[in-house]
Amino acid sequence: MPDNQESPEIIHRIEPDTSVETAALFDQLVSLLDSGTDEQLAQHLHGFHHSDLADAFGLLDRPLRKRLIDVVKTELDPDLLFELEDHLRKEVTDSLTAREVAEVITEMDSDEAVQVLEDMDEGDRAEVLSSVPQEEREDIEVGLAFPEESAGRRMQTDVVTVGTNWTVGQTIDYLREESDLPEEFLDLFVVDEDARPVGIISLSQILRSPRSTLMREIADETQVLVPAVTLQEEVALLFEKYDLTTAGVIDASGKLLGMITVDDVMEVAREEFEEDILLLGGVGEETIDDGVLQSSAKRFAWLLVNLVTAALASLVISMFDATIEQMVALAVLMPIVASMGGNAGTQTLTITVRALATKELTSYNTMRAIRKELLVGVLNGFLFALLAGVATVFIFGDLGETSILLGGIIAGAMVINMIVAGLSGVVLPVLLDRWGVDPAVASGVFVTTVTDVVGFFAFLALASLVML
Amino acid sequence: MPDNQESPEIIHRIEPDTSVETAALFDQLVSLLDSGTDEQLAQHLHGFHHSDLADAFGLLDRPLRKRLIDVVKTELDPDLLFELEDHLRKEVTDSLTAREVAEVITEMDSDEAVQVLEDMDEGDRAEVLSSVPQEEREDIEVGLAFPEESAGRRMQTDVVTVGTNWTVGQTIDYLREESDLPEEFLDLFVVDEDARPVGIISLSQILRSPRSTLMREIADETQVLVPAVTLQEEVALLFEKYDLTTAGVIDASGKLLGMITVDDVMEVAREEFEEDILLLGGVGEETIDDGVLQSSAKRFAWLLVNLVTAALASLVISMFDATIEQMVALAVLMPIVASMGGNAGTQTLTITVRALATKELTSYNTMRAIRKELLVGVLNGFLFALLAGVATVFIFGDLGETSILLGGIIAGAMVINMIVAGLSGVVLPVLLDRWGVDPAVASGVFVTTVTDVVGFFAFLALASLVML
Repeated sequence: MPDNQESPEIIHRIEPDTSVETAALFDQLVSLLDSGTDEQLAQHLHGFHHSDLADAFGLLDRPLRKRLIDVVKTELDPDLLFELEDHLRKEVTDSLTAREVAEVITEMDSDEAVQVLEDMDEGDRAEVLSSVPQEEREDIEVGLAFPEESAGRRMQTDVVTVGTNWTVGQTIDYLREESDLPEEFLDLFVVDEDARPVGIISLSQILRSPRSTLMREIADETQVLVPAVTLQEEVALLFEKYDLTTAGVIDASGKLLGMITVDDVMEVAREEFEEDILLLGGVGEETIDDGVLQSSAKRFAWLLVNLVTAALASLVISMFDATIEQMVALAVLMPIVASMGGNAGTQTLTITVRALATKELTSYNTMRAIRKELLVGVLNGFLFALLAGVATVFIFGDLGETSILLGGIIAGAMVINMIVAGLSGVVLPVLLDRWGVDPAVASGVFVTTVTDVVGFFAFLALASLVML
Repeated sequence: MPDNQESPEIIHRIEPDTSVETAALFDQLVSLLDSGTDEQLAQHLHGFHHSDLADAFGLLDRPLRKRLIDVVKTELDPDLLFELEDHLRKEVTDSLTAREVAEVITEMDSDEAVQVLEDMDEGDRAEVLSSVPQEEREDIEVGLAFPEESAGRRMQTDVVTVGTNWTVGQTIDYLREESDLPEEFLDLFVVDEDARPVGIISLSQILRSPRSTLMREIADETQVLVPAVTLQEEVALLFEKYDLTTAGVIDASGKLLGMITVDDVMEVAREEFEEDILLLGGVGEETIDDGVLQSSAKRFAWLLVNLVTAALASLVISMFDATIEQMVALAVLMPIVASMGGNAGTQTLTITVRALATKELTSYNTMRAIRKELLVGVLNGFLFALLAGVATVFIFGDLGETSILLGGIIAGAMVINMIVAGLSGVVLPVLLDRWGVDPAVASGVFVTTVTDVVGFFAFLALASLVML
């Protein structure tokens, strides 16, 4: 039984005066997919909001999902297709002919159509596009011409623009009479003769100004305009920073090509965060819905890298096998230093990667961050050296004087490794960022390799020095 | 020298026809803070967008920031105060009198004022509130009455509502004439006599309908209404799922209390993501700007937990010290199994925690996820058993038959630990989630404890069995 996907108290009115429980709807869907007729299913699907239905796709297992696709594809809702996660959307488009896909995307906003098409193979995409009417096709092709994950790919080409000499009254009349406008929009652009935006204005400002007011007088000139090649991640940061609802997208000459709205940016921001969190966890682009073979293959690469780096740590240990043979207590204690370093390094790394992503860490304060991590490493290093050292002396008390030696060795190695952990946790991601590599990609493996190698080496080398 | 905080091509027009480079502005700010007069500084600050200035606060070190605060506080911009990160905002309010804070927050929207006040001590808050004019104070107190991180705290009480019998024309006239409306709004609510919302309508729809149309005819009844006690994290998921620009916030009787808009939700979504990513990295609520002592203290707790769990792993090793004494190669190889398990567990954990947060993993597909992780563990377990086993036989070749024994031991332990890693990586966060604990909080430490203990135990126990 599915549990409540949503708190039951959240009212989501699908029809007037009816509060619908998503969880109950989903339960019924599962049982109908299992044993209902196509008609019963089609009937039941009318009660779903397209976003809820898109979520349901992700929860179903393959056989039930296959049946659901067969039912929805006869009359495919463009909103549903757009809301599906990438890999689920691909399952649906793969089950349709090129002409059928073309029909659905023709009904979408250009930015949505671009997102459906960008996941398809080059060949399929061309076939679909050839069946899209010319006007819509041209809009879509403008978007597809820009690189993946750029503002140009995410923009909607349908924008409402008015001239610099327009009045509020003229604008309101135009909005009421013109039929070829986007379905929903939050802001208008005031543009000059060369289609360059000179200001942006929200509908609430228009509605609250006298009809005779000139648009350019009330337009906000503090506008944020992004070139079409800007990374979408950059765009999301700008929206959050300046609390934007709409940003204009311009070409190299400053001409307005389209706009990006805040609802699209919410999704971009989520994708970018997911990417970071998964990379830091050593997983690539994996979803909960990937099959066993897909998941195993995606994780294999990072595990292989980890096997190599773990072998490196073993190599360090093997350099001291004679020392360990002399005192097996060293083998018992050595993982502690490595593990503490690994954790301290991961802490610093997490803070640093986030601060780089949100641009709170720039070259202006890098040195300050490094100095700070050095000091934190020293401070926590000495604290944990004391704790681990005293505990060791106490626990290995029956070894007599040797217990004091062991305590000293673990304390010394702890200080060294915690300092190295702090420094590598900040320096490695900063360097990767400077070199143009996403710091979340590889920092985790690098940092724990450093702390493992340094941890084992410091501990065992100190031991062999002391015991000479 | 600060590097470009923003791609230089992004145009951010602060004044008409002037493209301002944020990085250059910041450079000048630093040098003026260092050696300029207060007048020069005040003059320079006029060129800043409040969001850029808020970012600059975070980059400056304490002495320069102190000077900046002294300059801005004489004529504090409410937008600037609101945009500051929590800890920086607190620095500013601490330097102001209660009356001065009250003056600034009176100019804010109620949701913004609530956010400023919620970070203050109970006593300071009461003092500030007593200086806020009654009307604004009442609005603020409505928000503060709800729990932290709830929809009630994030809502703006200033909402535009119209009656069910209003026409478009009446509405437009009302918007133009009424002076007590929010500065910016994207949607209107249609409410019944009991102030219960019956529909929501965007300004673009109003503008595009004939004046005689009844508002309730064009209002969208598919509205999402959240009770004021809903968690803000839940609200952010709803906005993303249903592509909302505005959601109504209601009380227990269904009466409209206020609204939440998408720009506020962007920030909530970011905060919630940051929280997850930091928790997974074993850091609490830390920012790049925390001092050495603060950071050390915040990280200490997790490191202490890790010290205890690392000691647990050592305890397991010590159970087999006689075996290690017999063959020191075991000490060399044993970290490999533990490390591979730790990484595989972290991979599964990351996927699971994300899927729980986005509700892609519900009780409907939990068993499927567990079965999948079991199979991935078996598959990658056997692959890496083979790799590590063969490599061991090869590298320890000069030990003769013993090398084959060692290879077998590491292979067997690897299979066991990779399976345990996969299972614990999915089962532990799911259990924490069921028990109402944020799965990101503790899963990391628990999972690596399990994989360390099982890894060392499986490897050394197999070895002592084989060598008996």
